[in-house]
Amino acid sequence: MRIAFIIYDEMTSLEFVGVYDPLTRLKEMGFISDLEWDVCGVAKEVRGSGGLMFTPNKVGQPLVGYEMIIVIGGGGARTVVRDESFIKWLKTAAPCKLKVSVCTGSLLLAAAGFLKGKKATTHRNAMKELRELGVEVVDQRIVDEGEIITARGVTSAIDLGFYLCEKLAGYEAREKIRKQMDYHYHPQDP
Amino acid sequence: MRIAFIIYDEMTSLEFVGVYDPLTRLKEMGFISDLEWDVCGVAKEVRGSGGLMFTPNKVGQPLVGYEMIIVIGGGGARTVVRDESFIKWLKTAAPCKLKVSVCTGSLLLAAAGFLKGKKATTHRNAMKELRELGVEVVDQRIVDEGEIITARGVTSAIDLGFYLCEKLAGYEAREKIRKQMDYHYHPQDP
Repeated sequence: MRIAFIIYDEMTSLEFVGVYDPLTRLKEMGFISDLEWDVCGVAKEVRGSGGLMFTPNKVGQPLVGYEMIIVIGGGGARTVVRDESFIKWLKTAAPCKLKVSVCTGSLLLAAAGFLKGKKATTHRNAMKELRELGVEVVDQRIVDEGEIITARGVTSAIDLGFYLCEKLAGYEAREKIRKQMDYHYHPQDP
Repeated sequence: MRIAFIIYDEMTSLEFVGVYDPLTRLKEMGFISDLEWDVCGVAKEVRGSGGLMFTPNKVGQPLVGYEMIIVIGGGGARTVVRDESFIKWLKTAAPCKLKVSVCTGSLLLAAAGFLKGKKATTHRNAMKELRELGVEVVDQRIVDEGEIITARGVTSAIDLGFYLCEKLAGYEAREKIRKQMDYHYHPQDP
């Protein structure tokens, strides 16, 4: 099981770490021992929101060989959505079975052509933009369309993390991780 | 208004970013224009949980001139709590008016002598350890003792962030940040 977290300048730091923490505990707490992940970007250093710096371990490499990609959102999505080379790079993930986004990350999935005929969500301030990219937008915290799963605003990243934990490892694993993280999980909160 | 975020190896990455995100939005969304913060550590690079690397902008400098310090928790707290030079460094924050911790960060506040006569909380797995440091432990998500505010397990960092936003800038500011972050704030959830 291999996951790619896709990050870029001015992504929201909490959206990245919010989904990364519960998911990577699947390995650290022994539920999926062969879980592997890469943090993927197009530059050696990525400046997240609040000025936090992150270092991808895969830089500019094709997004192949992953069962799941997770595209993080943030203000920077509105820049990279118009960056042809970034979208071309994102398209290398086309064969990946499960494509996931947080917040405005869905704008990037749409720009790469991955949301055709799918419902999706995004940050409430970006729903108009997502609609303009031809996507049927749903105002829900998590929208699961099988091969595409999208989460709404910033902190929905954490709910998404738990949702994916359950999908990959079952209810019991998710509950153990949730308790360890002292979280109240309400994925369909309004 | 100056804040010091105190980080160290094997802190929980989400505890740091979880409180950092809402608090730093106080400046970014225009509520406290003169808000400043430093990320403080004792090494140039800090390895957070899940292998995420963070770079303090203040390394080994005395923790003076801050109105608030926020000590992050995580597995690494159990190492640094026994590290005399680290605790000596933390003690330089003694004059700081507001001392805050997330999760096992309260073990470090206790080791530095800051919790004498105060109630506090910590991760449920660490309550015994905190009691053994002479602290009256309370099983609540956030415990506010005036000069000392402690938060419980991992994701309580985010509730703490909102709690501090309201304390520093009022209810309206906190609500605007909460909506922007698509969060359901229940600071006193069981």
